Amino acid sequence: MKVARFQAENEISYGVLDEAEGGGVELVELVADPLVAGFDTTGRRFRLEDVRLLAPVIPRSKVVCVGKNYADHVAEMAGVTGEGAEAPTEPLLFLKPNTSVIGPGDDIVRPAISDRVEHEGELAVVIGAIAKNVAEEDALQYVFGYTCANDVTARDLQIKDGQWTRGKGFDTFCPLGPVIETELDLADTEVTTRVNGEERQHSSTALLLHSVPRIIAHASEAFTLLPGDVILTGTPEGVGPLEPGDTVEVEVEGVGILRNAVR
Amino acid sequence: MKVARFQAENEISYGVLDEAEGGGVELVELVADPLVAGFDTTGRRFRLEDVRLLAPVIPRSKVVCVGKNYADHVAEMAGVTGEGAEAPTEPLLFLKPNTSVIGPGDDIVRPAISDRVEHEGELAVVIGAIAKNVAEEDALQYVFGYTCANDVTARDLQIKDGQWTRGKGFDTFCPLGPVIETELDLADTEVTTRVNGEERQHSSTALLLHSVPRIIAHASEAFTLLPGDVILTGTPEGVGPLEPGDTVEVEVEGVGILRNAVR
Repeated sequence: MKVARFQAENEISYGVLDEAEGGGVELVELVADPLVAGFDTTGRRFRLEDVRLLAPVIPRSKVVCVGKNYADHVAEMAGVTGEGAEAPTEPLLFLKPNTSVIGPGDDIVRPAISDRVEHEGELAVVIGAIAKNVAEEDALQYVFGYTCANDVTARDLQIKDGQWTRGKGFDTFCPLGPVIETELDLADTEVTTRVNGEERQHSSTALLLHSVPRIIAHASEAFTLLPGDVILTGTPEGVGPLEPGDTVEVEVEGVGILRNAVR
Repeated sequence: MKVARFQAENEISYGVLDEAEGGGVELVELVADPLVAGFDTTGRRFRLEDVRLLAPVIPRSKVVCVGKNYADHVAEMAGVTGEGAEAPTEPLLFLKPNTSVIGPGDDIVRPAISDRVEHEGELAVVIGAIAKNVAEEDALQYVFGYTCANDVTARDLQIKDGQWTRGKGFDTFCPLGPVIETELDLADTEVTTRVNGEERQHSSTALLLHSVPRIIAHASEAFTLLPGDVILTGTPEGVGPLEPGDTVEVEVEGVGILRNAVR
């Protein structure tokens, strides 16, 4: 099931994607946020082309991110950040603030103080239930669904600060969407990033160094995860610059394409 | 004015501290959170000893922290974390999740996976208005008030990860309180930390490497700051271990004493 948050006629609603009679896609409106209110519908339907899709979730607590979670990306960054070429033995966690979240179609804004803003396409996990000290084998029970994310990074400021918070935390640096897919087979899901239609990153969840259940277990050992918290699972090799006028797409197979312009 | 959030008879309210007739302190109940609703009162008064004080604010977005903001602390950490002994030329930012916040009197819980949990007593700033790209000279207009904070840190995990998020982000690792003082002269305010009554850290805001206005300007250049966001301004030298059974106090002159037991 694909869940969206959308704006139609100045009203913000949640909906579930459905085939329209006679072709095309419609949104079946839900009575409220399905994270808290389930999937009861209002009976109203909207054609997809008549609404504006928004970030499918606004985390009220955390966007937890995992660094260095694909071996090829660890290798490509070793020369750049001056850090070692070894992959961490545990998921390496950092946070993006919820003020960095934007939706599909929103612009990524390059801050004036950075000369090097880069894309990092990723699979994101949306937490559905309060999770604390969750065992790896139970972890997927706490997942509401999956979406596409772009862990946009001011690489120069990330390197300058050493701590990644500022370089990865600017407003607009966490595009999420276009929808949340509640069912996804994580065994071998492709994650692809394109800039102006040209492929820049391409990998599979099969190559994650730390699996989604492992990440949830590890993060929930430190922080209580709340419904609506989002976990970005790490980016594969191929990160590169975003210039004003570019359009960047992150596609997660089975979820959809998250598309944002850069200015 | 001192603002508190408190629980009385299973109800959570906000209040302002006032002298009681005949001595002692009372809380004058406010109609709602003064961050959004101002200072209208309900007319009810509670004796301070009859209520339980809670964290005076629950950030709905960010706890922004500043690392290495006292020269003596930069020096003491250089040998510990393997980092340089130079103070950063700009405020070094990191985030604690809002799930780490506890109130006065709540227990700090040492996680089983850390062998070394330490106190870091600090002045905290509570943001009162939406702030983005704020100039240093205007920054204090965006402040609601000031409180005491303890930037509790699992030092071993901070060092192991390199990124500070996990080591500083555990549940209970951000005690705040006991109240928010809306008026505070930042020129030379003492910040003192005691463990079991013994002084461990003692400094003054006069020695902050980056001032409160400078921190707000710098942070708001990256992130939109929202009402209720909290900024921890950094800790002076004297950080040290917390053991089960210890009681740790952070006192900010003119604000009060934040006291938490450790288990």
